[in-house]
Amino acid sequence: MVNIAVLGYGTVGSGVVEVLTTNRETITKRAGEAIDVKYVLDLRDFPGDPIQEKIVHDYQVILDDPEIKIIVEVMGGIEPAYTFVKKALQVGKSVSTSNKELVAKHGAELLALANQKNVNFLFEASVGGGIPIIRPLNQSLTADEIDEITGILNGTTNYMLTKMDTAGADYDTVLKEAQDRGYAERHPEADVEGYDACRKIAILTSLAYGMQVDYEDIHTEGITHITETDFKYAKAMNMGIKLLGTSRREEGGLFALVAPMMIAHDHPLYSVNDVFNAILVKGNALGDVMFYGKGAGKLPTASAVVSDVVDEVKHMGTHIMTIWQPQKLHLVEYTLYKSRFFVRAKNGTEDKARALFGDIAICHAEGVDGEYGFVTEPMTVGDFEEKKSQLDGFIARIFMN
Amino acid sequence: MVNIAVLGYGTVGSGVVEVLTTNRETITKRAGEAIDVKYVLDLRDFPGDPIQEKIVHDYQVILDDPEIKIIVEVMGGIEPAYTFVKKALQVGKSVSTSNKELVAKHGAELLALANQKNVNFLFEASVGGGIPIIRPLNQSLTADEIDEITGILNGTTNYMLTKMDTAGADYDTVLKEAQDRGYAERHPEADVEGYDACRKIAILTSLAYGMQVDYEDIHTEGITHITETDFKYAKAMNMGIKLLGTSRREEGGLFALVAPMMIAHDHPLYSVNDVFNAILVKGNALGDVMFYGKGAGKLPTASAVVSDVVDEVKHMGTHIMTIWQPQKLHLVEYTLYKSRFFVRAKNGTEDKARALFGDIAICHAEGVDGEYGFVTEPMTVGDFEEKKSQLDGFIARIFMN
Repeated sequence: MVNIAVLGYGTVGSGVVEVLTTNRETITKRAGEAIDVKYVLDLRDFPGDPIQEKIVHDYQVILDDPEIKIIVEVMGGIEPAYTFVKKALQVGKSVSTSNKELVAKHGAELLALANQKNVNFLFEASVGGGIPIIRPLNQSLTADEIDEITGILNGTTNYMLTKMDTAGADYDTVLKEAQDRGYAERHPEADVEGYDACRKIAILTSLAYGMQVDYEDIHTEGITHITETDFKYAKAMNMGIKLLGTSRREEGGLFALVAPMMIAHDHPLYSVNDVFNAILVKGNALGDVMFYGKGAGKLPTASAVVSDVVDEVKHMGTHIMTIWQPQKLHLVEYTLYKSRFFVRAKNGTEDKARALFGDIAICHAEGVDGEYGFVTEPMTVGDFEEKKSQLDGFIARIFMN
Repeated sequence: MVNIAVLGYGTVGSGVVEVLTTNRETITKRAGEAIDVKYVLDLRDFPGDPIQEKIVHDYQVILDDPEIKIIVEVMGGIEPAYTFVKKALQVGKSVSTSNKELVAKHGAELLALANQKNVNFLFEASVGGGIPIIRPLNQSLTADEIDEITGILNGTTNYMLTKMDTAGADYDTVLKEAQDRGYAERHPEADVEGYDACRKIAILTSLAYGMQVDYEDIHTEGITHITETDFKYAKAMNMGIKLLGTSRREEGGLFALVAPMMIAHDHPLYSVNDVFNAILVKGNALGDVMFYGKGAGKLPTASAVVSDVVDEVKHMGTHIMTIWQPQKLHLVEYTLYKSRFFVRAKNGTEDKARALFGDIAICHAEGVDGEYGFVTEPMTVGDFEEKKSQLDGFIARIFMN
């Protein structure tokens, strides 16, 4: 029997306890021994809840208990999570976490510490909720040079964009609906501004290339400027608009970007709708593989956390290697990022647009008056910005994937 | 440095050598040491090819060389692969294989032998080509009770069905085209009769439930009876037809089936087209996850084989546990399998169909005369067969997923 402690009895924490209880038999079989929750750390008490007898308010109790081999950190945020996790690893306990901020910021350091102490620091739930993506990147896609990772990494914004697409609703309406359904928070910036997706693509890219990608270096745009009109153009072109986190290897180095992008209807990510997430990985030998599932939610996230705990039980006394080292990976500057762009501009500027962007095809969308759209050839962001600044009547632009 | 031997220098075998050469740097980093091919076993010689100096014709040379720690078996078929693999494990060498026949038939036994000898027997490439599915099932989906596995497991037939759907071509035409393109073999039975998909769903089900599922026990239908007319009905109902391998847990036990099935346009497998494969796994905590990619081909398959080799290098001296035991898993009898059915019948039998199947909605497809279609309520295969036998004018039926 292995004793574990859970830090934080919120949504995911209570999910972890529930999964361990409900699936006890299967989990015991897969781990090789039973897994018992001995402590739950929370500031609150839960009188009447059976969990109450396991509640402790002092982390030191957990740290000092030699019976505790594995700690589950599901508090979220950098502090005190960072301090708690570091201390756990230092005293030789393995950690499983769902905390993307923590992993994006301190992942390399905590992995190095785990390696040094011959324990494990696993974080399957930090990206894609229940979707297995961290372990496959670490252990399955090991024969390939990774050429590209592109994902729908945030369920809230994917739900909102799906609603805008299918119901023709505007941004404010779908945000309110998402908030009412509990998919979006009252302060939705982390989701709608792309910050959440940014941390996740930073984690995936670090794991794929074995160096530290600082999420602050990734140019990040959210979905707040996406309108019903954009979707009308997308429909006219038989495309969709998705908030994508992407990183790709090119001659000049590694590019990374988070932004809403147009994707063609035959792209594997096109039909990933509602709160679902999906991550597409391109390897130089295996081609495209995609991982799809619920990117959030109590039980899917808890399932991923518990799968890490099972792995840690199976690897007691051995460190599971990753290639993520602390050296900083310098991304190619945003202005050198190459893409095609979808552009909207006011009627009457078509000739100027042609003079600037070459032989473009003008596109009109049903129900949209006074303006037109077109798609550029591939060019760098810098080139595009330069040309754009000369196009009077420019309205908006969206990256094309 | 780790020395390996490759058994069979066919498509996959040469792909393995190519991947190990092309991606040597990345693979060395991920495995922790360099991986070198010391021998290639093949009956043929390859004069002028650099591989020639590594060619051996006598397997004993490989078995007797203590430098060889890992053997890659990519010959296919049961013999001599089975004998070779067994001998390798017996003398303490790990094995990585792409051989689905071997794994479906002898997987449990070879895993037990590997465990006993403290080496590894891995077979990521045996299902889904380059798609990581075996390792995720073994190591990621460990917190869940698996409720269902449903997959498009054969690229040849998926290519053919996609062509029938999009080009309105008939079965014989698309088979010939698939053969011309090298997607289908001259003797295409293994693919078109569903035998290949059957072995793959047997492997996945064995791994998910930890017992031996004998593929002979799985009711298997191929796509040879699927016609253009079936696709016209599918279109009328906004559905697709896919050859699916499926197993699911129900109150009465475990059901498994391979057959062409109708699936709705919002099903995650609906948009998996051409030679792509995808496997949908439903867990009781994590919900639906799907794994998508190229299900065959030289480099994708080789990539999966090499990822196993990397894992074996990282786990030298430790056996990677699976729960697949040799005890036989008794599947629920086919006649008790519950499904809805799509039925085609001759005009004039509508009243009888209603008397037998209740309040059904009659469906007519564009360009199809003299007959109609309908979808039944969920019922067992046995019940369906009984009712069907009473419906004069019955033409065909397809399972609904």
